[in-house]
Amino acid sequence: MSLKEDISRILGPEKVSGAPDVLATHAGDKWYASVLPEAVVFPESTEDVSLLLRYASSMNIPVTARGGGVGYVGGCVPVRGGISLSLERMNRILEISPEDGVAVVEPGVITADLQREARALGWFYPPDPASRKECSIGGNIATNAGGPRCLKYGVTRAYVLGLTVVLASGEVVECGGRTHKNKTGFDIGDLFIGSEGMLGIITRAVLRLIPHPEAFGALSAGFPQFPLAAAAVQRILNSGHLPSALEITDSFTLRAARNYLGDSALPSGCRGHLIVEVDGRRPAVREELDSLCTLLEECGATGILRADTEAEAEAIWQLRREFSYSLKATGMTKLNEDIVIPRSRLVALVEFCEALNRETGLDIACFGHSGDGNIHTNIMVDDYANPEKKALADACVDRLFHWVLAHGGAITGEHGIGLAKAKWFRKAVGEGAYHLHELVKSALDPKNLLNPGKMGLP
Amino acid sequence: MSLKEDISRILGPEKVSGAPDVLATHAGDKWYASVLPEAVVFPESTEDVSLLLRYASSMNIPVTARGGGVGYVGGCVPVRGGISLSLERMNRILEISPEDGVAVVEPGVITADLQREARALGWFYPPDPASRKECSIGGNIATNAGGPRCLKYGVTRAYVLGLTVVLASGEVVECGGRTHKNKTGFDIGDLFIGSEGMLGIITRAVLRLIPHPEAFGALSAGFPQFPLAAAAVQRILNSGHLPSALEITDSFTLRAARNYLGDSALPSGCRGHLIVEVDGRRPAVREELDSLCTLLEECGATGILRADTEAEAEAIWQLRREFSYSLKATGMTKLNEDIVIPRSRLVALVEFCEALNRETGLDIACFGHSGDGNIHTNIMVDDYANPEKKALADACVDRLFHWVLAHGGAITGEHGIGLAKAKWFRKAVGEGAYHLHELVKSALDPKNLLNPGKMGLP
Repeated sequence: MSLKEDISRILGPEKVSGAPDVLATHAGDKWYASVLPEAVVFPESTEDVSLLLRYASSMNIPVTARGGGVGYVGGCVPVRGGISLSLERMNRILEISPEDGVAVVEPGVITADLQREARALGWFYPPDPASRKECSIGGNIATNAGGPRCLKYGVTRAYVLGLTVVLASGEVVECGGRTHKNKTGFDIGDLFIGSEGMLGIITRAVLRLIPHPEAFGALSAGFPQFPLAAAAVQRILNSGHLPSALEITDSFTLRAARNYLGDSALPSGCRGHLIVEVDGRRPAVREELDSLCTLLEECGATGILRADTEAEAEAIWQLRREFSYSLKATGMTKLNEDIVIPRSRLVALVEFCEALNRETGLDIACFGHSGDGNIHTNIMVDDYANPEKKALADACVDRLFHWVLAHGGAITGEHGIGLAKAKWFRKAVGEGAYHLHELVKSALDPKNLLNPGKMGLP
Repeated sequence: MSLKEDISRILGPEKVSGAPDVLATHAGDKWYASVLPEAVVFPESTEDVSLLLRYASSMNIPVTARGGGVGYVGGCVPVRGGISLSLERMNRILEISPEDGVAVVEPGVITADLQREARALGWFYPPDPASRKECSIGGNIATNAGGPRCLKYGVTRAYVLGLTVVLASGEVVECGGRTHKNKTGFDIGDLFIGSEGMLGIITRAVLRLIPHPEAFGALSAGFPQFPLAAAAVQRILNSGHLPSALEITDSFTLRAARNYLGDSALPSGCRGHLIVEVDGRRPAVREELDSLCTLLEECGATGILRADTEAEAEAIWQLRREFSYSLKATGMTKLNEDIVIPRSRLVALVEFCEALNRETGLDIACFGHSGDGNIHTNIMVDDYANPEKKALADACVDRLFHWVLAHGGAITGEHGIGLAKAKWFRKAVGEGAYHLHELVKSALDPKNLLNPGKMGLP
């Protein structure tokens, strides 16, 4: 009997597919790697997931969970075939409770949908990955997703209170719960946050909500040199401001933006750029923008745009998105590495990338979350299909990662390891932590069936 | 050769003691249980800890780590004898870097010392357990310590970026690092946060600092009935305020406070009390206090005290501390249970405790962190040495915990499980999570040598 027939018998025929087009859409994510699963399963409940894993475990069939499928590191590519486990049908917001400050959701809920529903009640779910209109809460938890506002509000991990998890064996485990604090034992649920589907399948989450800020405001500021923008980041934080976002852009990206948007979109001669967003009560936001304007001028900013309302701030965020589009508009392949460095190394990173550019001829665009040092470093390749160009670009990524690790940084702040960064993983975490990963993985998934072949683990 | 002689040979004689008075002071914490260790060891480096654990592991000797020794659940009682591992000599703040937004500390650093040093540079380490002048960062991490300001700022876990950990085998593992985001693999360092010394020994931590708020302000408000105070909590959070603290006190505690402090200390007829603290930029704090004053009046508050400066706010916090002292001043034993409930259950909890009081005759005082539902519930016993009284009080704790679990709560929000709550642990976390604890514990500490006999694990 075939895999599909087995699963059909266990869960019902409407919950499994072996159709070529369905297999194809479940073969990969936004990274280039692609491997067809043997079957795609669409569970509708925790019990479905448990039954499926019980079966897969007894038959030694790999199971690769899949959320929105919009990852950047091939995390949901079923590299060893078997089952692609799509959580897309488990997409209900089960409850939003302002009284308890929680939302209870299934993993397939789209992040932006939860944010919209919570906001309608005056409540806030802060994590804001760029893909929030497409990505799912389950995927966000599995990758511990971040975003610009994590500077003030922390990453996904700070908002997970409880998880229902199905282990590889099919055993269902409740971790944490509905309370905002819980010191009952180890932080066992945390193990699944950021585990990239390799330790268990999340089928339900209790998330912490906070009161929605009354107002948002933002500033956009150009600088004649990138180091002045980086110095302004330090100055802002050293002056007691904790912005909700603090985004920096380097001169290469600004050049591409000027080509794409026209000269008038940016202050002339601007070779560094900052977006500072603040939130809070309305009068507080106004006062803080006054103070930040003065401070940015003292730091050498030119062409400051001020957004006193959320709608105006949205125009500034749109400019930030255009930076990304303008890199795409170059027509080049963009190797988007989401490295993190200690914040004091911002200028050193950009100088290193400029030197790498002079040496290799490859353009490198740096922009991102300067407050927490999480800089999206894009190596631009004009013909990645050309093996020579590919080798050059890959060597360039290698050198970038070595530099980052040598300077106290991390090779990924948001995207995760998956397949794309697997070959660097062991060096990046060190022998001790690598060994711990092995210990934990084999304790929880002794047959190595959950998303096997990722992170450079066996 | 004796244990002490062995260790003396490995680490040097000045780092180990078998003196009766030293053994005695390392036999317990603030809970009543007490077991003498065979030796107390005072390592001065990660290498010392590694050498010691290598030796202990080869000889199957239990090792119980100890921070400030001010826990409430017997967490550092060496119940199976062996070694008490005091981290008190590893008490250096190695670095405070505003540029990177981090502090690097040894585990024996006293929490308040770190806060003071960071503040002198304009930076903030928010976790604020009541014992912060005595407790250590290592202990805070091992128990994932909280405090009033965790409502806005999150518990200790939100501030740990990197850990150096020595495993039971003596292996040294570096987890995370100096960056504010890191998605390199599983959240492996998180496993040690809240692990109560049962999975590894923390010998160094990189902590996240944030810009220190410019100003603090606070309100103290009485209410004629407790439910009005609880309703005000909901109203505040539903109006877009996220106070840095939101503390509630019930009528029993207020009665004790009036007896202790005199009638004038509290508004007359006050049977519920709130402290609301806000922080931020100076004008923002003023405006928010204006708004909160109006809101509290609408909620039926009487005798509102307003503190516009941090010094004035300190006087309000002093009142909060007096609540605690006035319970102690009753001369009764105070079984302080730090239960957590979903925030909507505040009134139900107090009504349950009032019913329990009518039935058992035992006074029960509830006060604490109402914003996150973490209410310190104190069962007052006039003669705990009397076996009948003890049995009555213990049965009362049992009923409280059953009620809390039946209403979606947790039996501990800050203190942890240790010995004191071990007998409830399995029921409190459920079979699935209990099994996960066993899996993780035996993967990381296969000989069960690190703080054995705690949490109801074997």
